[in-house]
Amino acid sequence: MSIDNPDNKWIGKRTPRPDGMDKVTGRAAYAADTTMPGMIWGKILRSPHPHARIRSINTDKAAALPGVKAVMTSRDLVDFPIDKSVMLGIQDMRWMCRNVMARDKALFAGHPVAAVAATSQQIAAQALTLIEVDYEVLPWVIDVDAAMAPGAPILHGHIQFEGKPSNIAGKIEHKLGDVEAGFAAADVIVERSFKTEPVHQGYIEPHACLVSVAPDGKATIWSSSQGQFMVRAMCAYLTGTAQSDIRAIPAEIGGGFGGKTIVYLEPVALVLARKSGRPVKMTMTREEVFRASGPTSGSSSTVKIGATRDGKIVAAKGIYYLQAGAFPGSPIRGAAGCAFSPYDIPNVHAVGFDVVSNRSKVAAYRAPGAPIGAYAAECVLDELAQALKMDPLQLRLKNAAKQGTKAAYGPTFPVIGYEETLKAALAHPHYMAPLAPNQGRGVASGFWFNAGGESSAQVNVNEDGTVVVITGHPDIGGSRASTANITAELLGIDHSKIQVLIGDTSSIGFSNLTGGSRVTYASAMVVTKSTEQVITTLRQRAAKIWKIDPEAVTWDNGQARPAGDNAGKFEPLSLAQLAARASETGGPIGAGVSLNTTGAEGGFATHICDVEVDRATGKVAVTRFTCIQDVGRAIHPSYVEGQMQGGVAQGIGWALNEEYIYDKHGRVDNPSFLDYRMPVASDLPMLDTVIIEVPNPKHPQGVRGVGEVPLVPSLAAVANALHGAVGHRFDSLPMSPPKVLAALEPAEA
Amino acid sequence: MSIDNPDNKWIGKRTPRPDGMDKVTGRAAYAADTTMPGMIWGKILRSPHPHARIRSINTDKAAALPGVKAVMTSRDLVDFPIDKSVMLGIQDMRWMCRNVMARDKALFAGHPVAAVAATSQQIAAQALTLIEVDYEVLPWVIDVDAAMAPGAPILHGHIQFEGKPSNIAGKIEHKLGDVEAGFAAADVIVERSFKTEPVHQGYIEPHACLVSVAPDGKATIWSSSQGQFMVRAMCAYLTGTAQSDIRAIPAEIGGGFGGKTIVYLEPVALVLARKSGRPVKMTMTREEVFRASGPTSGSSSTVKIGATRDGKIVAAKGIYYLQAGAFPGSPIRGAAGCAFSPYDIPNVHAVGFDVVSNRSKVAAYRAPGAPIGAYAAECVLDELAQALKMDPLQLRLKNAAKQGTKAAYGPTFPVIGYEETLKAALAHPHYMAPLAPNQGRGVASGFWFNAGGESSAQVNVNEDGTVVVITGHPDIGGSRASTANITAELLGIDHSKIQVLIGDTSSIGFSNLTGGSRVTYASAMVVTKSTEQVITTLRQRAAKIWKIDPEAVTWDNGQARPAGDNAGKFEPLSLAQLAARASETGGPIGAGVSLNTTGAEGGFATHICDVEVDRATGKVAVTRFTCIQDVGRAIHPSYVEGQMQGGVAQGIGWALNEEYIYDKHGRVDNPSFLDYRMPVASDLPMLDTVIIEVPNPKHPQGVRGVGEVPLVPSLAAVANALHGAVGHRFDSLPMSPPKVLAALEPAEA
Repeated sequence: MSIDNPDNKWIGKRTPRPDGMDKVTGRAAYAADTTMPGMIWGKILRSPHPHARIRSINTDKAAALPGVKAVMTSRDLVDFPIDKSVMLGIQDMRWMCRNVMARDKALFAGHPVAAVAATSQQIAAQALTLIEVDYEVLPWVIDVDAAMAPGAPILHGHIQFEGKPSNIAGKIEHKLGDVEAGFAAADVIVERSFKTEPVHQGYIEPHACLVSVAPDGKATIWSSSQGQFMVRAMCAYLTGTAQSDIRAIPAEIGGGFGGKTIVYLEPVALVLARKSGRPVKMTMTREEVFRASGPTSGSSSTVKIGATRDGKIVAAKGIYYLQAGAFPGSPIRGAAGCAFSPYDIPNVHAVGFDVVSNRSKVAAYRAPGAPIGAYAAECVLDELAQALKMDPLQLRLKNAAKQGTKAAYGPTFPVIGYEETLKAALAHPHYMAPLAPNQGRGVASGFWFNAGGESSAQVNVNEDGTVVVITGHPDIGGSRASTANITAELLGIDHSKIQVLIGDTSSIGFSNLTGGSRVTYASAMVVTKSTEQVITTLRQRAAKIWKIDPEAVTWDNGQARPAGDNAGKFEPLSLAQLAARASETGGPIGAGVSLNTTGAEGGFATHICDVEVDRATGKVAVTRFTCIQDVGRAIHPSYVEGQMQGGVAQGIGWALNEEYIYDKHGRVDNPSFLDYRMPVASDLPMLDTVIIEVPNPKHPQGVRGVGEVPLVPSLAAVANALHGAVGHRFDSLPMSPPKVLAALEPAEA
Repeated sequence: MSIDNPDNKWIGKRTPRPDGMDKVTGRAAYAADTTMPGMIWGKILRSPHPHARIRSINTDKAAALPGVKAVMTSRDLVDFPIDKSVMLGIQDMRWMCRNVMARDKALFAGHPVAAVAATSQQIAAQALTLIEVDYEVLPWVIDVDAAMAPGAPILHGHIQFEGKPSNIAGKIEHKLGDVEAGFAAADVIVERSFKTEPVHQGYIEPHACLVSVAPDGKATIWSSSQGQFMVRAMCAYLTGTAQSDIRAIPAEIGGGFGGKTIVYLEPVALVLARKSGRPVKMTMTREEVFRASGPTSGSSSTVKIGATRDGKIVAAKGIYYLQAGAFPGSPIRGAAGCAFSPYDIPNVHAVGFDVVSNRSKVAAYRAPGAPIGAYAAECVLDELAQALKMDPLQLRLKNAAKQGTKAAYGPTFPVIGYEETLKAALAHPHYMAPLAPNQGRGVASGFWFNAGGESSAQVNVNEDGTVVVITGHPDIGGSRASTANITAELLGIDHSKIQVLIGDTSSIGFSNLTGGSRVTYASAMVVTKSTEQVITTLRQRAAKIWKIDPEAVTWDNGQARPAGDNAGKFEPLSLAQLAARASETGGPIGAGVSLNTTGAEGGFATHICDVEVDRATGKVAVTRFTCIQDVGRAIHPSYVEGQMQGGVAQGIGWALNEEYIYDKHGRVDNPSFLDYRMPVASDLPMLDTVIIEVPNPKHPQGVRGVGEVPLVPSLAAVANALHGAVGHRFDSLPMSPPKVLAALEPAEA
């Protein structure tokens, strides 16, 4: 099917949401909605100290409390030696095991140190108070710059940087051309430093799971995650269980945004269930979510960009220090790799440093690292445009990456749609609209890699001609809807005849995480291949009935037809008719395909943001926002728009209000949605979206990733708009009322 | 792999039972173990009359009772016109819809007429008493002979036989040669008539289900059945729902024996759930199971067999009247088709009549009809051997069917193992053992068709090299264990690395019922093909790593190896090693196959039974029993033996004690396990088994069906043994103490 076929019936259409009815009526089962007979409750004891050696843990009194059925510590998990990497995907299991439960040291306030399971939540909570932990409290460090300062407390003794014990755990570097020569050739150079705070993914559903282990060791896990196969693999690793003895069932997920790509509770619940012989349910409170899960990195960065007088960018340098939390692994690749990728720059040097400190370990968050990288680069570009007296979009257009541009992080771009987003932004009424007093307008662009990876699909034709499609990754952003649209289009049957389901680890082939904006891309590929195999079978079945060559049968609009007059005269056979005769013509009709998909080309977006400042309070309101993005192909436009709007909303929160505040004990002081200020509906205008479709030629429907790009430019778009409104360039996030007010006061005074 | 390979590691071995631990620890979840938030309870109002026109049903008062959430009658189900067949597999939906709920007439005492769902079982029961049904009570008929007598009440006005309204609803006839000429050539002829009573399958788990329907009509069904796809299809038909809107999940099943191949509760619960918007749970009491589900037919039959003086059987004739219950559809094919099939007889005439009467509709029961056919035929053969002064086994051996024998029901037998069972019986110590006073010994043989049909399998390799195998039919007799043995053998990995699961209707391709002794046969075929495809992939992956031709890689004992020296020198790669590198070598490894399998050749068994009679009470005790059966290939011998023993135990109950007793109102008078006397452990000796393996050449492992054949000869074996003990030939079942005592008394007197 041609990507641009105007006759598409289902692809590109706003079909009913398969998950919609369940979600709006409360029937959708999230992890915490599951119960089992005999179920008991698990709870975690967490370190009150941000850094402490654990001398001993005495759980005897807790174990003796009536109603307590199991107690565990890190001794009940597999011990991966700390000095040897054990990689599972992008996760290192030696850190994961210590993050799930502290082994020799507690490394952040909230770090799990022990867990209990009891017949009620009250008894479990009481039992936690009976566990005696002998801590040797150690000096701690929270901030990323402080963690690199001389004399900072060192978290991991074996980690060295430049030959010395250090909290710098890793470095990534991308080089293109000769950046010093580039700056030497520049007429105008802007160099600025920035800081950003860690922000949490802020999913509505806290982590939760229910785990049952049979006496023969076979385990069933229900949990909310971005990957049931990830849950299975990590639990297998951490508890020493064969993967075939674990069945991980994905619950409906109440948001993840990257934060549910790792496990916190599942291996603990598995051990408690195994020890107690009872199904164990665990749920985090919101406070636990804030203290001990997520967020993404805080950062400290310096970006320098140089251009010739005519606006040609000739050199760019970026140094990004990203705070990883208690264990190594911050998204330095996203920061250093994406920051300059929208531009065709001959000389680039981008460096990322991974820095540990005594905070909860960061997790992936929507285009991990890229918003941090883009925030600094796009703010500097805005200042550069001002210095060059150029329109900021024209500066970007003049330097825009296009097919054939070499990116500093490695590839040469294939067909991409960045220029199209800039041209659409320049032509958009928003960009021409007048501004009122105290208002400003900013623009910014952003890039994200997008990912392919392993996906599996199974397409089965039911006896009545309806169809079931199963894929293997949780549906966060509308993959069930996209899958239904694609299958209906290819088969030529009504969309309502298709049921799309997410399989558990035992009912579908391996499928990688829902992450990297990969799911609609990759599942469309395996769903397309499976459906094509089904169509081949349907043609063979019709050929068998008509006693002609299968090559003489075409599949057209949901029916098998003879191909041309030479094939013979036969009444077309519908899918329902062929399904009814499946048994006599060779058996059930279905096909499954597993692939490690490649070819998920990068995505680009350009944002236009208007803000208005209340000069009395310093409060910044976003008054208009337009998100323009090349998605390759919008299989289900409503979900695509929803993803774009969701990314922008998170970016506005990151830019204006969200931050972790630590008290003098090194503990998070605002672990609730009352004190950690995410934008709510009343904080936001309607977020306008413009979908650009520059089809990805490597994908059967032209899809690129969608979900992550819209977060990338939004921080800088807000910051540049605020500069327009108040004439001041802020060099740190969030640009919250106290900070804005402080910046305004000298000017007002 | 050669079937007879003595190096088999797993096929033919008594590996741990995958379902064992769950079942013995109470963790296995049967249908009634499932609950859902907001769940309410459904209950059925049943007709007290065996035959009554329903003038009206008033449910207003029941609907008004606080706590009642939904009320339904047959008007809420799809109305299939009674005079037009609507076949689904072997079931006619016009009868099924009326069996699930009476439409214009109640046709047996226990026939559902309405149903309610309420917030508690107590309220639901109270609501039933408030439903007002206006019945016009009609004359009724229970017995099969009475139903055919002139002037009998007619159940279905549109059914005619030989041009007149009749309770005879169908006829099947098999003819071979010229039976009259055959009898004319016979030297000895024996002709006898028999009656058998309906007997219930007697599964431990009563029917149960839980059904949830979302506001958009999508339904989830948990139930105990012999086929989740059957449940889906029948519910779709009866409630007018698309199959893609139903997900049927198979619970662990507590016995079925054919009685769970149809639906009773599921469509009712679905309608109640749809009407109420609440999940609805329904469970039958044991009394409801006896009054309104199962059993198999009672029968009235006449068999005539003639032989020449040298013991060559020259003619056989059988006429079988089988009671179908309230709607047409008794197993006349099994009775007329199997009765004479163990023998090479040139002239055969076998006729079966399907007779309705005012009893609950019969359901399939282990080799449906065949035990009834064999009972009459094998008793007559025993008398014929006596008349010929021949050993009864030698008479059977002289006339035994073998490869090339033409069976009256159609086929010419391929490789079969009947003679082998007879020779094993003749050589068995049991057959030579002395008998004590009041003891007798009987033998009998039996045949069952065995079935193939649609099956689907999916084999997935996990990242750690363990393997998940999914099939689509409930595991009743050990199919998970057989599947694990076969997969381990083919892959060359340890049995414990394999997890076998039963998929729901949305997670595996269409798979027909667990029935017809088909499951291990058919699933082994699709599991074998899937596993072979996985091995092909594994060889390709090794070839890719070694950069050689896949044809130059062999799969040997769980490892890829270069095939010969020309292929190059490489260290073997294990399944686990290849699994770990699946992503880089092309993605997840797995394969699925769906087939409509054929080639399930017939199975034969010969039984030796000893009984001892207590002359004071008429009680008959089985003192020794040996079941000798050709199974083709025993994939898991313990389960095969269990099937053989289970079939014999049911046959002993049928022969000696089980029967339905009706009161003067036409209602079952013994609807409980106290009054309906099934054998319990203390009633039975150790049931000895001899497995004969004459491999089925049409099957990759040589499998035939196992589960049904062992019931077929056992009724006659007991009857012939009792003749040996008391010198009296009983012509009806059960041979219960009152009947035996009555037969003994004249002799004693």
